[in-house]
Parts: sequence; C-alpha cells; structure tokens
Amino acid sequence: MDSPKVVGLFLFEQFELLDAFGPMQMLAAASKSFQVRLLGPSLAPVTSAVGMTAGPRVLPDAVWETSEQLHVILVPGGRGTRTEVSNQRLLHGLKAHTTKAELMTSVCTGAALLAKAGLLDGKRATSNKLAFKWVTEQGPKTTWVPQARWVHDGNVITSGGVAAGIDMALGIIAQYRGQEAAHKLATAMEYEWHNDPAWDPFAKSAGLV
Amino acid sequence: MDSPKVVGLFLFEQFELLDAFGPMQMLAAASKSFQVRLLGPSLAPVTSAVGMTAGPRVLPDAVWETSEQLHVILVPGGRGTRTEVSNQRLLHGLKAHTTKAELMTSVCTGAALLAKAGLLDGKRATSNKLAFKWVTEQGPKTTWVPQARWVHDGNVITSGGVAAGIDMALGIIAQYRGQEAAHKLATAMEYEWHNDPAWDPFAKSAGLV
Repeated sequence: MDSPKVVGLFLFEQFELLDAFGPMQMLAAASKSFQVRLLGPSLAPVTSAVGMTAGPRVLPDAVWETSEQLHVILVPGGRGTRTEVSNQRLLHGLKAHTTKAELMTSVCTGAALLAKAGLLDGKRATSNKLAFKWVTEQGPKTTWVPQARWVHDGNVITSGGVAAGIDMALGIIAQYRGQEAAHKLATAMEYEWHNDPAWDPFAKSAGLV
Repeated sequence: MDSPKVVGLFLFEQFELLDAFGPMQMLAAASKSFQVRLLGPSLAPVTSAVGMTAGPRVLPDAVWETSEQLHVILVPGGRGTRTEVSNQRLLHGLKAHTTKAELMTSVCTGAALLAKAGLLDGKRATSNKLAFKWVTEQGPKTTWVPQARWVHDGNVITSGGVAAGIDMALGIIAQYRGQEAAHKLATAMEYEWHNDPAWDPFAKSAGLV
C-alpha cells in the first residue's frame, strides 16, 4: 500500500465545528490511507463556531503556508467564511498548495473560499443549501448545482451543508480505497453512509428545487 | 422560554472526536435551549482520538469539578475510556454532578464510565456495538441492550457508537423542545435524523443479534 495521503484541514476563526471534524473523523479513521493535519493562521488556538455560537478552541498543527506537501485540501464552512472570503493570506495559502494537491475539497460554505481563490472557475460545485445565494455570488464563473450531496468535477469535490461533509469524506475514502472499505468504516462508526452524491432531500426543504 | 440548560461535556485524554463534537454540534446549534461547556482534567489542552490515531487538541472551558450547575452531562467514548475507567477523580467528578443534573448521557464507550461511576446500576443501557463485551463488563448491575440507537431509562440516556450520539443529541433536543424543533435543526444541518431509538442495523453487523 502507498504511504498515507496528507490531508490539510484549513482552520480559521469561526469555522463550523462539524464541517471540519465530521470528515476528519472518517478520514483519520482510515489511518493507513490518510493523515490529517490541522492548519491555522498561526499556532495559536482557533475558535470554532456552531452557527452563531462560539465552539471549542482547537490547536493547529501547522500554519496555512506549511511546506509539507498536502495531497488533499479540506476547507470547512461556518460563519467565519463571511470574513475569510476577503482574507488574501488564506486565499493565497490555499492556491499555493493546489499546484501539488491531488484533490481540493470543501464542506458547506467552505466552497465560497475555494471560489474566491479561483479554484472553482469553470467547474461544477455545490454548497450549503441555506446559504446558497451568498456562496454562489462568490463564484460567478462556477456552474452551481443546487441539488447534490456532493459534486466531483476534476480535482475538486464540494459538498452540501454540515453533515454532507461526512458523506463526501466517505466518498473520498471510496475513491482511494474502494466502496467496500468506505462502507466498512462507516459501519464501524455506526454511521449510515449516503453513498449517492445525487441524494439530497435538503435542496427541496430549502426551496432550491 | 426557560434559560438555556447547561451541558457539561466531559473531556479526557483520547476521547473520540466525533463522539463529543457530533452531539455538541446539535446541542449548541439549539442555542436558546442549550449551552455546552467543555470540562477537562485541567485547563490544559486535551488530545482527542480517532480510533488509535491522535486527533485535535482542544482547550477545556473549566475543570471536571466546576461548581457551575450542569443540567445535562455528556460523556463521550474513545480509546481513553480504557484507562479512565480506573480514574477515581473522573468518576467522582461525574458522580458529584449527578445529584443536581437532570440528565446523564453517554456516547459509545462513554457508557463504561457512567457504569463504573455506578450511574447505570439497575438501569437499561447501550453502547458501541464493536466494544460491547468490554463495556458491559464494566456494569454488571446494568441490563445491557445490544440493539438500540439509544436507550432512555429514567434520567440516563446511553447511545451506540460514534454517529449514534448525533441521533441521541437530537432526541435530547426533541425531549426539551419537541420533535418538530429537532427535525428542523437536523434539516438545517443537512442531517438525516434517525429519530427512532430502536433503529440499529449495526447490532446485526457486529453479530450481537
């Protein structure tokens, strides 16, 4: 087996808690295939968010500009994205890694950051269904898909809101290790994986379709 | 509306990442009803786990023996439980809060800690399906239920492994605010809530039924 792929999880102030740690739980559990690094603006604690409420403070492993090669980039959403879309340092940090990364991924409103970094130009993508209008405004050159659990286009995978990131992460595991391995891991976590990227009842609840 | 219930989330070295932050995401999102405090052995960072792998380091808000009244106690599982079942300070800390708490809850192997603290004596309870034998050995006076998403007996709710905690947390929200509020919150998180505590395909996968 190849050496584990390094996943760079980009943290910023007020990243959404489960957007980050739902997918991380799945990827890190596949420890023979993935190692997750937490990347922050500095090594100081980063405060997560749950909606408008402050969440746990988390210590990064390295800064965004780490020289370690990242094979997979994972960008969570959260209310912090509303200010981070204007943070040139974060956007440059993301872009700098993309020349070497195999896969760039986002959860929820994290797609707005990929879009602002130009990484979704000419691509199909999705995002949180309740913040869809704002996110899509950040990426005018993107074909936004309102109904999807996740969307895979070339070297980019974007997922829907919060819990959708868990299903996308299992999809990433399936891509590298096969569907059976992903199902086995989900079962060990007592998680019912929605393995169809087209499954999305939430677009309808949000009035998008 | 009543003032928010305070949820004390007990952290210890090598608590399982999603056991803690899956339920926290749901409870903290219901911010008018719940406020979550992270309680650690000290105020120093606590290192989570994903299976056998080290996870994010998290800063507690207070220590286990906080004098703040906790209405709901939430105990995650994880490999750390294997040593914490012998940690008298943690077990005493848990017990000390239970005289005032309305509800004591656990995710995954966190049930072993409730059991060791004597809080499951004479009660029905469940736990992670893949660690069922070890957990049940920690609570000889408990009626262990092998097939359940979560089990509610009196003032105690125990849930299955990892992702089961998210469904239990939504069940707690339903208990305080009604089923509709819990469904609405799950939908906003793009999460498909299994709202039937008897739903559990994982007991069969694990050979328990």
